[in-house]
Formats: sequence, structure tokens, C-alpha cells
Amino acid sequence: MAILVVGSVAYDTVETTRERRERQLGGSASFFAVAARGRGPVRCVGVVGDDFRESDLGLIRSSGARTDGIVRRPGASFHWSGRYHADMIERDTLATELGVFADFQPEIPRDWLDSEYLFLANIHPTLQAQVLDLVTGPRLVALDTMNLWIETTRPQLLEVLARVDVLLVNDGEARMLTGERSLARAAAAIAAMGPGRVIIKKGEHGALFFGRDSVLAVPAIILDDVVDPTGAGDSFAGGFMGSLAEAGATRGDGDAVFRRAMIDGTVTASFCPEGFSVEGLMGVTDESYARRKAVLEGMMIP
Amino acid sequence: MAILVVGSVAYDTVETTRERRERQLGGSASFFAVAARGRGPVRCVGVVGDDFRESDLGLIRSSGARTDGIVRRPGASFHWSGRYHADMIERDTLATELGVFADFQPEIPRDWLDSEYLFLANIHPTLQAQVLDLVTGPRLVALDTMNLWIETTRPQLLEVLARVDVLLVNDGEARMLTGERSLARAAAAIAAMGPGRVIIKKGEHGALFFGRDSVLAVPAIILDDVVDPTGAGDSFAGGFMGSLAEAGATRGDGDAVFRRAMIDGTVTASFCPEGFSVEGLMGVTDESYARRKAVLEGMMIP
Repeated sequence: MAILVVGSVAYDTVETTRERRERQLGGSASFFAVAARGRGPVRCVGVVGDDFRESDLGLIRSSGARTDGIVRRPGASFHWSGRYHADMIERDTLATELGVFADFQPEIPRDWLDSEYLFLANIHPTLQAQVLDLVTGPRLVALDTMNLWIETTRPQLLEVLARVDVLLVNDGEARMLTGERSLARAAAAIAAMGPGRVIIKKGEHGALFFGRDSVLAVPAIILDDVVDPTGAGDSFAGGFMGSLAEAGATRGDGDAVFRRAMIDGTVTASFCPEGFSVEGLMGVTDESYARRKAVLEGMMIP
Repeated sequence: MAILVVGSVAYDTVETTRERRERQLGGSASFFAVAARGRGPVRCVGVVGDDFRESDLGLIRSSGARTDGIVRRPGASFHWSGRYHADMIERDTLATELGVFADFQPEIPRDWLDSEYLFLANIHPTLQAQVLDLVTGPRLVALDTMNLWIETTRPQLLEVLARVDVLLVNDGEARMLTGERSLARAAAAIAAMGPGRVIIKKGEHGALFFGRDSVLAVPAIILDDVVDPTGAGDSFAGGFMGSLAEAGATRGDGDAVFRRAMIDGTVTASFCPEGFSVEGLMGVTDESYARRKAVLEGMMIP
């Protein structure tokens, strides 16, 4: 069953202590699509400028995703530039040039409107709501957001939250959104806003799943070497939604299928920081995936 | 089988945003002993001043531990004073008055020298080595340390590390000790220093166990309310060592018994922040323990 993702398709300039990469493929929809590895399949909706290389759209397609919903507009593509600290966790944003993304209006190809799964990546909550107005009854809707929207567009965010099934946020955002220090209380407060399931991402410390009647803590797989962590959160979402689509999950299901999807999200996300841009994700094979899944399960089962 | 713990027995003055408690029972040996809940049983070695209340030694004994090895010296007891930030994680140390602890020389009652398990809490590594010289072949030795000793007494610390089976440190200390950013690499580097097993404590993010041929990530149990997190690390150690002693574990065993002990350490530690001083630990019953263990397992098993 198909997964529709609406988000950014961008260029990232990333600097680490070891290397600097200029204008490499980035953006939430790109990472999500490549991470989902053709499960679904994935249909991407976004916007790029006339500077966007056709070969980068080709990179997304090579994962099995469709890019017909990525429109090209005159102007520059969304460009984010950042520098990671030596810990490869903290980072400074050096520039955010929205370009054509500033006027992004999601246009969904007519035959994609019945996509069964919808991932609303981190964009303005009003745009997220517009997408929800267009689609025709998806089985499951997940939404990502960020501190910017929590701070500047809270009413719109709350409105769209009431209409989704799963919220993915990091721990700081969960606390900011709810004013609760305890993540258990924050998750309960978010559930009261609408999303029956809440995923709290904690980067190198893994992720927490707060379900209907269970909680799951999934550790991050411990990597020997981190090359570029950009996009790991969206990669998690891609693995998570891909898993749910493959299983044919619906919002009415019990927690079990979501707990399994947490594992797939975590395994998937672990490949992302091992390369720049989507390189780490592109190298995943069924074998390397299964091997890493076994490592994760070994880390979890007492 | 008996557990010998050598560490501090102290008074803590703790300030949180809600409350301030003056000179409440603290110290690594105190938390460890109460946390172990009579498993072992636990034999405490430490020093207190003439200001130390007999009733506080009674608190330790009420958990089933023996306090014959806690000697009383003229002068003030070790006193630590700190203030927690609103997040209940960050804290500022306001005062550290060593008192009689400055001249602490561990004196071990003769009939305790054959204790099967030894926990060397966070004290000067030369004192830790002295204890190791005295005891007669324990089945298992675990050691805790801190940034102060890593920075100021590195050669002595490395010497004692070569003689222990399990090291417990937090993530920052593991990185400082080894110079490795990756915790996988840090754990491997520590194992090469001597301890075949390494536990990396991450506070609210749980703990990692690096065993002979396996890794286990145990999440922290998510608490609704944190009253005073002081002593949670030593409580973890108490639950961990208590579990190993109850199982009769030896250093030659496979990882399985240590993985189970990680669960017991985590369950035990979760009670500590729910009250000031050892209050949270004192309230533990077999029922509340079993309930919380079931919660933790539910959080871990995919």
C-alpha cells in the first residue's frame, strides 16, 4: 500500500570536523523516501528550484520512490547549511535559504490522493492541514513538527494534531509543546491533543513509543563512526512508515504492529549517519538490514 | 553470599526547586546498601564523624545491611551540598566538606575479608587498591569512579582497573577515560584496561552493558515525578550487585546473569529519585518491585 510523503526536498551544505560537503541531497522527504526503500511504494510531494540536479531526483527514485509530485519552480532550491561540533550531535545552523520552498503549496497528483499512508514531514502546520483536506481517507497519518512551529504557529499546529494518528517529535519539542518535564506526562498530554500514538526521538539515546496501552523504549544502535547525522530522524520515519505499510497497519490496530515498526525505524535510521546525505541509506541491503536488526534485538531482549 | 561495599557514608544537603533538605543520609555506601535490600547480605565499610546520628546508621541497618565496618572518628561527617536545576538532572555543587572522610583508611572487620562480592564505590583509587589487597579472593569485584580520579590520579586508577571485573561509569566519564567519542569504542578500550564488563550509566536515558560477547541497552523507567535523583547511580549498583550475589554469579559466567542484573539494577534505581535521601528505596516492597520489573520488561521486549 502506498505512502504519501509531503516535505522538503533540499540541498544541504554540511561541515563536520573532518569534511565539508556542498549542496548534497537533503530534505525530509528525500531522507524519508530513500529510507523507506520502496516499501509502500513511496510517493514524494515537494518543490525544488531550477538549480536542482535531475540526478538528485534520480537518487530518490533509485530507492523505488516516485518523484512525480516534486514540482520544479523558477528560483533556488531550499538550502540548509550547518556545522557539526566534534561530538557529532550539537550543530550550528549557518544558513537557511528557503528559496522556492517559501511559497510551497503542496500539489498532489490526482491518482495519489487515495494513498493509504500519509507522512506529513516537518512543514508549516497549515500546509499539513491542507494536505489532510485533499487526501481521501488514509488508513494512517503521521506528523513531524519542530520547535519553530510550536512557538510561532501553535493554534494551527494544535488544529492539525487533532487530525493525526502518530506524532513524531524529539524530547525537547515534546516538553516545549506540553510544558511537561516528564516525558510520560508529555506523551499523555500529546495524546490528549489527538495523536493516539506518540514517538519521542532522543537521537543517540534512541526513541520512546507511547502507544494505546504500552510503552516501548528502543535504544539507538551504537555506531563505531558517525559521518553525518543529518536526516536520521526522517530516516527513522521512513523505516517506521515503511514497516506499517508493509504490514497493512491501520489506526485501529493494537500496539504490536507499531512496536515492530519502531524496530524497523531504528534499524533504518542507524544507517543514515554512516554516510553523507543519503549515502548511508543507499548502501543498505537485505543482508545488512537483517544483521543490524539482530544486533538491535540482542541489545533489547534481557 | 555476602557483598562488601567500601564507600562514603555522608550527609547531603539537597535543594530542588520545590524543597530543601538539610543533612539527610547520603553517600555511596548508604545508597548501595539500602538499594541491595538485604540481598547478599551487605557489609558496609566507611567512616563517619561524631556528628553522625545513630538513627541514620539504623536506617542503613533496617535494610538488612551490617554497619560494623563504619567507624566513627572525631570530627565532622562528609557533607555534600548541591542544588538541582528545574530539569532535575543538572546540578550545582555548593559545597563539598570532606571532614573525617579526608583521612579515610578502610578498615575491614576480619570476618568480612572473605566476602564473595566486592563493590568499590567512588573513592580514591589507591584506597580501592588497598581494599583489594586485603580481601581474600572475592568471586567478583565491581568498581565505580569519577572524573576527579580520571583527571588527577590516572596511573593509580589504571592500576586498580586492571584488577576488577566490572567498571561502572557514566557516559562522560567513559569518554574522558578513553578519549573515545563512540561509546562502543570507549567500552572496548576500557575492557582492554582490565574490566571484562563495562556498564555505562546514562541517567534518564538508562544504561548500557558491554559484556564478553553481547551488548544490552536498558532504558530508565520513566517516572511521573522526580523528587531527588541523588544516589540513583549507587542504587543501580546496589541492585546490580544484589542480583549477582543472589544468583551466585562469578566472573567466569557468561553474560546472561549480568544482563539480568542490569534489569535489577535499573528497577532498583528507579525508586531512588522518588524520594529524598534513601526514602524512595526504603518504601520498596516485593510487590512494588515486581510490578516495576514488569513495566521495564514491557518497555524492552519488542
